[in-house]
Amino acid sequence: MLINRRSFMIQFGDCDPSGIVYNPRYFEWFDISLHALLARGDLRLRQMIEEFGIDGIPMVESRAKFLAPSRYGDEIVIETSVAKLHRCAFDLHHRLFNADTLAVEAFETRVWTVIDPQEGRIRARPLPAAVIARFSAAEPPS
Amino acid sequence: MLINRRSFMIQFGDCDPSGIVYNPRYFEWFDISLHALLARGDLRLRQMIEEFGIDGIPMVESRAKFLAPSRYGDEIVIETSVAKLHRCAFDLHHRLFNADTLAVEAFETRVWTVIDPQEGRIRARPLPAAVIARFSAAEPPS
Amino acid sequence: MLINRRSFMIQFGDCDPSGIVYNPRYFEWFDISLHALLARGDLRLRQMIEEFGIDGIPMVESRAKFLAPSRYGDEIVIETSVAKLHRCAFDLHHRLFNADTLAVEAFETRVWTVIDPQEGRIRARPLPAAVIARFSAAEPPS
Amino acid sequence: MLINRRSFMIQFGDCDPSGIVYNPRYFEWFDISLHALLARGDLRLRQMIEEFGIDGIPMVESRAKFLAPSRYGDEIVIETSVAKLHRCAFDLHHRLFNADTLAVEAFETRVWTVIDPQEGRIRARPLPAAVIARFSAAEPPS
Repeated sequence: MLINRRSFMIQFGDCDPSGIVYNPRYFEWFDISLHALLARGDLRLRQMIEEFGIDGIPMVESRAKFLAPSRYGDEIVIETSVAKLHRCAFDLHHRLFNADTLAVEAFETRVWTVIDPQEGRIRARPLPAAVIARFSAAEPPS
Repeated sequence: MLINRRSFMIQFGDCDPSGIVYNPRYFEWFDISLHALLARGDLRLRQMIEEFGIDGIPMVESRAKFLAPSRYGDEIVIETSVAKLHRCAFDLHHRLFNADTLAVEAFETRVWTVIDPQEGRIRARPLPAAVIARFSAAEPPS
Repeated sequence: MLINRRSFMIQFGDCDPSGIVYNPRYFEWFDISLHALLARGDLRLRQMIEEFGIDGIPMVESRAKFLAPSRYGDEIVIETSVAKLHRCAFDLHHRLFNADTLAVEAFETRVWTVIDPQEGRIRARPLPAAVIARFSAAEPPS
Repeated sequence: MLINRRSFMIQFGDCDPSGIVYNPRYFEWFDISLHALLARGDLRLRQMIEEFGIDGIPMVESRAKFLAPSRYGDEIVIETSVAKLHRCAFDLHHRLFNADTLAVEAFETRVWTVIDPQEGRIRARPLPAAVIARFSAAEPPS
């Protein structure tokens, strides 16, 4: 399955008066990791909207365990992979490492949605074969 | 159990290029709702740190279901309650309503932590009776 | 000229490890105040885009003086007014009060922009008379 | 004078429903650039607080011109330099480039502040010689 790693340093402004990462920042970072994973599979949201006529890939569910706090200046690696493919959705698995410590582990489910042209409503639709192929790739296309 | 409701309007800057709420914003709002709930129980983090010697009440787990998207200008109500008391932790339950629709439902677990003076390590400690009493109140103290 | 006041409490997550407001938050608050001012004049960005065919009202210049720090729990009032009308732009004046102290004072200039249908380029255009009338109102329409 | 360049890609969540960068994000990026500049001069805020007894280096003034909009996926370079040294303060100059275009130019003034031990008040103090030396370096120390 498609996988991506990215690394960055925690910024001063990512932290709250307790001196640890302000919790919602983790979800920003996982969102950035989703887009980086898509790019690794040569997928970009703007192109996906044009090519597949989707409205987006909204998150419908998330679960996270915060195992250790992180602080300003810490070097972080987030490893994000496609964990499971559903008919109209996919699961992502994020593992955030602070040095060698698994500090946060999260799962999220995102749905492949289109705007129904007749009803004007947002509806889940099956993942296209081309997207399944890219998500299933053991290695990103070179 | 202690409960609080707060209402606000979704701002332009809360939304992403898809026109819907940028997902991490929900977690900011739930964090604000936690502090509002504490205040409802006449508890404030700064005072809790001084009074009980805690290091903080870090989130160790979260789960959320995003049932419907919300947009700029939508009027939101978040209802937050203490869902369960553990020995050294407590669960919160957030329900975010957009008009009459339950749009997001989330649970989180927060741990009562102190800095061990001898080891210098952060450790979970039992919730004080005074805090249990306030969390258990059917009605906030008047 | 059109004026609006709004009040709110500074949140825990608005502050950085120094314990004071993380500076970029002020600019979020001024952006929210812009939208609140527009609403006071019965103007909303989405409607302005449809009614006047604008692409937006991007900020082209800002100036701010930070006179006193603010902290978690402080009660804030932001007073925002239209300070000056230009041909294709307008200036806003924000005054942020912490209790009775003027803590931040800021000015910004925003441009009335449309997408030129022939060139596909974003261009400044004169403020419509209807918008000038609303910005010039001593009192908001009742 | 000390100078630093850093580059990054604009993220989806950095943009608002207009599809352009949500304005306050620029100020987050300039704050990150300040810290990166300090690190380039082998200065880190936590160490500066310990070594020099400062309370912080709060921003007291900012000015910015937004010359061109930027969008999701754009590759950005921010060049930040110490523009001027005052007795108790220093000015930074940020230039944000989108490809070859100067998209945002900003100046900010930050004050060297300590907590007066007798009065308990925050006061501006002269920049230490060691800090002036590092800020004045044509090249960062190797």
